[in-house]
Amino acid sequence: MRTLQVALGERSYPIYIGPGLLGRGLIGEHLAGGRALLVTNETVAPLYQARAAAGLAGCDWRAVVLPDGEAYKTLETCQRVYDALIEGQFDRTATVVALGGGVVGDLAGFCAATYQRGVGYLQVPTTLLAQVDSAVGGKTGVNHPQGKNMIGAFHQPRAVIADTDTLATLPERELSAGLAEVVKYGLIRDAAFFDWLEAHAEALLRRDPAALTHAVAESCRNKAEVVAADEREAGSRALLNLGHTFGHAIETHTGYSGWLHGEAVAAGIAMAARMSTALGWLDERDRARTEALLQRLRLPTAPPPIPLARYRALMRVDKKVQGGRLRLVLLRGIGEAVVTAEFDEAALERTLREHAAAD
Amino acid sequence: MRTLQVALGERSYPIYIGPGLLGRGLIGEHLAGGRALLVTNETVAPLYQARAAAGLAGCDWRAVVLPDGEAYKTLETCQRVYDALIEGQFDRTATVVALGGGVVGDLAGFCAATYQRGVGYLQVPTTLLAQVDSAVGGKTGVNHPQGKNMIGAFHQPRAVIADTDTLATLPERELSAGLAEVVKYGLIRDAAFFDWLEAHAEALLRRDPAALTHAVAESCRNKAEVVAADEREAGSRALLNLGHTFGHAIETHTGYSGWLHGEAVAAGIAMAARMSTALGWLDERDRARTEALLQRLRLPTAPPPIPLARYRALMRVDKKVQGGRLRLVLLRGIGEAVVTAEFDEAALERTLREHAAAD
Repeated sequence: MRTLQVALGERSYPIYIGPGLLGRGLIGEHLAGGRALLVTNETVAPLYQARAAAGLAGCDWRAVVLPDGEAYKTLETCQRVYDALIEGQFDRTATVVALGGGVVGDLAGFCAATYQRGVGYLQVPTTLLAQVDSAVGGKTGVNHPQGKNMIGAFHQPRAVIADTDTLATLPERELSAGLAEVVKYGLIRDAAFFDWLEAHAEALLRRDPAALTHAVAESCRNKAEVVAADEREAGSRALLNLGHTFGHAIETHTGYSGWLHGEAVAAGIAMAARMSTALGWLDERDRARTEALLQRLRLPTAPPPIPLARYRALMRVDKKVQGGRLRLVLLRGIGEAVVTAEFDEAALERTLREHAAAD
Repeated sequence: MRTLQVALGERSYPIYIGPGLLGRGLIGEHLAGGRALLVTNETVAPLYQARAAAGLAGCDWRAVVLPDGEAYKTLETCQRVYDALIEGQFDRTATVVALGGGVVGDLAGFCAATYQRGVGYLQVPTTLLAQVDSAVGGKTGVNHPQGKNMIGAFHQPRAVIADTDTLATLPERELSAGLAEVVKYGLIRDAAFFDWLEAHAEALLRRDPAALTHAVAESCRNKAEVVAADEREAGSRALLNLGHTFGHAIETHTGYSGWLHGEAVAAGIAMAARMSTALGWLDERDRARTEALLQRLRLPTAPPPIPLARYRALMRVDKKVQGGRLRLVLLRGIGEAVVTAEFDEAALERTLREHAAAD
């Protein structure tokens, strides 16, 4: 087991990474004496709820099982969690335990942030995407029909427990989708990790346990450092959004179905790289390396056909718009990204136009 | 105009109290350069939206008008605010301006706390209850069918602008309801203010401007001091809940209709006083003074008939329950309250039984 720390003063918390963690009692150790509501979904429950229950042995807990999928990441689904909390007479000492992927983690975390104005929660991510990204850093939220994660709160978990054994049952597409976020860390701030990923792409795809554990741990270490430096995304934390503004547009356009978040991010990263090259910021060789690694990891590098005007409009409702100006994460090289509103709009237009459907 | 400060470090903010503030440009001065969404309701809009608009002259703003009433303090109504924010393409620099009573302020504040994980907001309270209580202190939230304020967040406003002119149009019942919270401050920590209230009860009822401004300012000063000492209600802030656990049970039982919040609090205060006397903590003379002042302010001092078992159950879903133990705010004297779970249950039973409907 590898243990990292997210350094946030009195809100600091540990991240545990390794095989066999679910049944070990780690969950129960972090309930702070209170009762637990386990929040999971219909896909994850039959696979891992029993193991999580072993980790909760001796604790007073109950479970709520939600439908699976990004389409259910809504306030309506939150109501089911609130109902379970109230029916179970949970008070402010309650701990919400999010067992599942990013949707379960974001939604359960938001419910924890807002139930009785905030109770504790644990992230127990069971997908690669959640283990390397969404479970760490305290961003919680749900979608609005017109924009992803538009409703949410910053609320740090009490601990993150990433049992890498759960990746064994992950569908291939979801494994690849998670790897998009892993590649992102290399691109924005860790060239050595990017090199390592190029050398271990096939090991990751065949789920070599040591390679997966290393990839999760290095991703969490990078994310923890970024979050510790800028918890509320006043500045540098926005680097984590590489590919996300282009990607969110894809997800919103497709109604959060068809494209997995990581797939949209992969296409978004490839678009950000192309735009960076169009601006003369990223050399063609590094752009090609980026695209090649994504493709080796079986990820898309272009968006679906979206009419140009619609793509432009979708990007403008992104949370990264500030004071009417669109800010983007762009690349200066592998391992070096910038967040900026200072770019030639023509390069953005050209990038969108390359892929756009006829208006 | 009187100006107070809520001292919360980087989250500190001013409270402005006085006549004629709405049209003065104070709202516009606190938008921090961003655009504003004015949130109000169907009752307040025809009375004060135009004046608020004068205070927003030269700013980029739009309005959303919600139905009036505690019954609309729900997540469903929040959706209308989120919709307005998204349709208006508001970004993270947005400021939500809550123009109205406690329901508008709590709900709009919650939307501000959760839109894009948090934007700024201003409290512009137009009822006495909101001016002396709910607009100050950063508690935001909405109701769940089974419990008041069960879903919420701590989110401090950027400023509170209490224009006492708006109290001129307040229905008599709502004026009295607001005075219940005013009496509360005297009871929990300010015996001199309680004395002043006894001397000025009739002046307040006839809306003497100087008396109202003094009552609002002293209430806000007391609340600001309590909030500054314990922002997140880890301890002493819970004193502000005098009468509220008994009162919330009334509101929940009556489905948030029929009884105004302040009326339920008044009955709750009288019940807490009776229980305190039953415990031998509050002498009979001070209990009688408390009840007499509430009655002079035209407030109820007994709950509606609620079956005993139901009253008990309703009190247990209150947020003040911790680790399964009910904590109550009780009186040791006028100007001295305690928050405690250490009380003889028989005194609570006796107090509930005195007023209970047949089971």
